[in-house]
Amino acid sequence: MNLNAEWITGFVDGEGCFHVGISRHEGMTAGVQVLPEFTVVQHERDAQLLHAIKAYFGCGVVRKNHGDRMAYRVRERKQLNERIVPFFEEHPLHSKKRVDFEKFRDVLRLMEQDVHLTEAGVERIRRIAEQMNRGAPR
Amino acid sequence: MNLNAEWITGFVDGEGCFHVGISRHEGMTAGVQVLPEFTVVQHERDAQLLHAIKAYFGCGVVRKNHGDRMAYRVRERKQLNERIVPFFEEHPLHSKKRVDFEKFRDVLRLMEQDVHLTEAGVERIRRIAEQMNRGAPR
Repeated sequence: MNLNAEWITGFVDGEGCFHVGISRHEGMTAGVQVLPEFTVVQHERDAQLLHAIKAYFGCGVVRKNHGDRMAYRVRERKQLNERIVPFFEEHPLHSKKRVDFEKFRDVLRLMEQDVHLTEAGVERIRRIAEQMNRGAPR
Repeated sequence: MNLNAEWITGFVDGEGCFHVGISRHEGMTAGVQVLPEFTVVQHERDAQLLHAIKAYFGCGVVRKNHGDRMAYRVRERKQLNERIVPFFEEHPLHSKKRVDFEKFRDVLRLMEQDVHLTEAGVERIRRIAEQMNRGAPR
């Protein structure tokens, strides 16, 4: 299945999610781990779509999610910075999810400057993350 | 907002629904009404997307749905036959929703032959409609 860039943008406008997780992690500097991830969740009957999206981006994994759902997920910062972010800069989302994407990109840029390795930096990232995904329930 | 055809296909693969309603209606021949409809439901914060889709197709309505949801809806057979069906023939869906679309088109073609105006015809359409939207809950 060959996907078109605009198709992917439309599908992600509907089904995608840009998320920044922040969790306690004793091993990390500042005591927390900041985990940005891009996901697309789908009923297992359409798992082939997730594999096609993975093939398009050339990164990420397809795994079982809750129940009969599958998820395409990208967590590696290098891949997020080099593949996912440039794609959505070139092919902008049309929905309000675009605002989430922009905050997601802001967090990744701060992480490139190691901002997440200080307590003040984590707070700054937390304030951005709290403003994300505040619309429709997912 | 100018939408691209491939974007619409991707968005409908995620958020669209092809449905054939069959309900009792004493005024109709065969005692039932067959009501095919194409809908795209979205959180009200993205109502502007539904209006952009309506503008693209040049038909349909945008209305409040349940709670904080809005829906773009096309019910007029002429518009379904002349605008919606040809669009998705030219820009095929990639998800399993494509199978629903094909059954939806089958029902519209049967209706063009007035098949829905006989009891046997309604049963034939009911069997097709029962096979639609059997995947993920909506």
